[in-house]
Amino acid sequence: MQVGSRMRSPRDSGLRFLAWWACTWWLAAAASAQSPVLPSWNDGEARTRIIEFVRAVSDPRSRDFVAPGERIAVFDNDGTLWSEQPLYFQFVFMLDQVKAVAPKHPEWKDNPAFQALVAHDMAALEKLGHKPVIELLAVANSGMTVGEYDKTIRDWLATARHPKFKRPYTDLVYKPMQELLAYLRANGFRTFIVSGGSVEFMRPWAEAAYGIPPEQVVGSQMEVKFEMKDGEPVLTREAKIAFVDDGPGKPVGIYRHIGKRPIAAFGNSDGDLQMLQVTAAGEGRRLVLIVHHDDADREFAYDRDSHIGKLDKAWDEARAKKWIVVSMKRDWKKVFAFQE
Amino acid sequence: MQVGSRMRSPRDSGLRFLAWWACTWWLAAAASAQSPVLPSWNDGEARTRIIEFVRAVSDPRSRDFVAPGERIAVFDNDGTLWSEQPLYFQFVFMLDQVKAVAPKHPEWKDNPAFQALVAHDMAALEKLGHKPVIELLAVANSGMTVGEYDKTIRDWLATARHPKFKRPYTDLVYKPMQELLAYLRANGFRTFIVSGGSVEFMRPWAEAAYGIPPEQVVGSQMEVKFEMKDGEPVLTREAKIAFVDDGPGKPVGIYRHIGKRPIAAFGNSDGDLQMLQVTAAGEGRRLVLIVHHDDADREFAYDRDSHIGKLDKAWDEARAKKWIVVSMKRDWKKVFAFQE
Repeated sequence: MQVGSRMRSPRDSGLRFLAWWACTWWLAAAASAQSPVLPSWNDGEARTRIIEFVRAVSDPRSRDFVAPGERIAVFDNDGTLWSEQPLYFQFVFMLDQVKAVAPKHPEWKDNPAFQALVAHDMAALEKLGHKPVIELLAVANSGMTVGEYDKTIRDWLATARHPKFKRPYTDLVYKPMQELLAYLRANGFRTFIVSGGSVEFMRPWAEAAYGIPPEQVVGSQMEVKFEMKDGEPVLTREAKIAFVDDGPGKPVGIYRHIGKRPIAAFGNSDGDLQMLQVTAAGEGRRLVLIVHHDDADREFAYDRDSHIGKLDKAWDEARAKKWIVVSMKRDWKKVFAFQE
Repeated sequence: MQVGSRMRSPRDSGLRFLAWWACTWWLAAAASAQSPVLPSWNDGEARTRIIEFVRAVSDPRSRDFVAPGERIAVFDNDGTLWSEQPLYFQFVFMLDQVKAVAPKHPEWKDNPAFQALVAHDMAALEKLGHKPVIELLAVANSGMTVGEYDKTIRDWLATARHPKFKRPYTDLVYKPMQELLAYLRANGFRTFIVSGGSVEFMRPWAEAAYGIPPEQVVGSQMEVKFEMKDGEPVLTREAKIAFVDDGPGKPVGIYRHIGKRPIAAFGNSDGDLQMLQVTAAGEGRRLVLIVHHDDADREFAYDRDSHIGKLDKAWDEARAKKWIVVSMKRDWKKVFAFQE
């Protein structure tokens, strides 16, 4: 519909009032006819506190009311919105790229990091340290245009399967968190992902999985370079990290990308601590929540001693500051949509 | 309103249909009762082509229809949405910060860049080159928290006056472009600023001036560092540039921040060329527009030979590719809201 041309008639105002009234009634009825709030969450402290917070900041009569434009909610991705064990899924993808392009890199044959990666030799990898592995991953995941890389990611997501669940990785998003995202948006929140993973890896599926469009995904960034290639302007990926959106980088990513302090933040590990601290430190009512992985049957159980998604300092701070700690086992009726 | 609890009654469906119908009628009537399209634009090729483009991409029956989520429009700021002469306004602000903090930097007394800046000695500045000036500006505009810097910007905007118009700088936004932004949004577009200026300098006033919220402002970035200060988490500005969102940087900024190729782009100088090229290179119908400053009476007249906002290569490409070139003199009824 094209908006803008004039249309008026003398009997407009009475009709308009009636229509406005009907419209208000219809919207209220449509809204309240939604399914019940957070159906995959068990009744308990976590669910109750979430609902109380949302009511307090979205009810105009509440003393904790927050204008819709300021209702910013930020979510870590790995371990908070989808699984991250036994290895960050993006790491598995990048590793597969190393194997895929190895034939073009005969020089890797004698590279100890390459040998250890292909052999899954964790002891050797630990001895080598992060640097040579990250260098290898960076080379294997660069040199192409951003469009070509996007296709590589989509192809991988369509075919790769999780070792424990034997399903596409994108099936491993948490049903209760999907409901929470939708519930917040239905109450005037804008929801953002703020992840240590790269934006490229999340954007192709985040909208379908979480209702979060590409422009609301904040993440780590590789350098990309503008160039003309066969007369077409393209962006090419370089083997250099531009920004790490993890730990103390998360508040920086939020500042740069959003420019407002969130009033609600959701994480699961020490890499989220600074994001949670910055959210909690704002004036007015706040919601700060940590997902605790304590459900080895339905997902995984890990916290203080885990290499992936270590939850230690952030857990202590959550207890000291009375942030919500969600027990996946106790608080969630189901973890994944596919589980009965 | 809290969304989510159940409410249903058996006679709902009939009432609901009536209410839905009334609602649709009311929304359409309300939309079409708006003031006429782009009232500050003279009838002419530029206005006609803009309106035709918007109709083509927003009418579901059109073969050029674009889904609302993909209707991304990007705007340069300096010289496209507000003035940039005789000096970029942010440059004037940063210069004032050099003077303001000079007493804390006795070592600057013997710094030739500082001497030339304070004396407005353009010949000496040209001889020195950009580097020492930028270093000075970086030091004067860093070392504080982002909150403190935000206050400095707001205080400056409230008191500084433009040398020609004797008005606050934020009065120097272009009325026809404000109308264009609102017109695009009314037709389902999301509007972003993509500027060589820094995000910090635009965010405090862009929402009031353009209806563009902080999270839709893409710009150059200084390094900021997370730290705990007196037990509070803060971000502190460092004297180091993290990202230059100008020229070939603009498509990079768009890719990182938005993650979608715009279907409409608006600029005024060679610094916008790559952003315009990337927009034009997408499949489907595109709108690419350049504002030409040819109105010395109401604003300024400059193009190929200007140090600020040089329009040379982008102008040639606009002619060759039939992009819209707006003549401020011929196409705009008024430039600023305050002009009769």
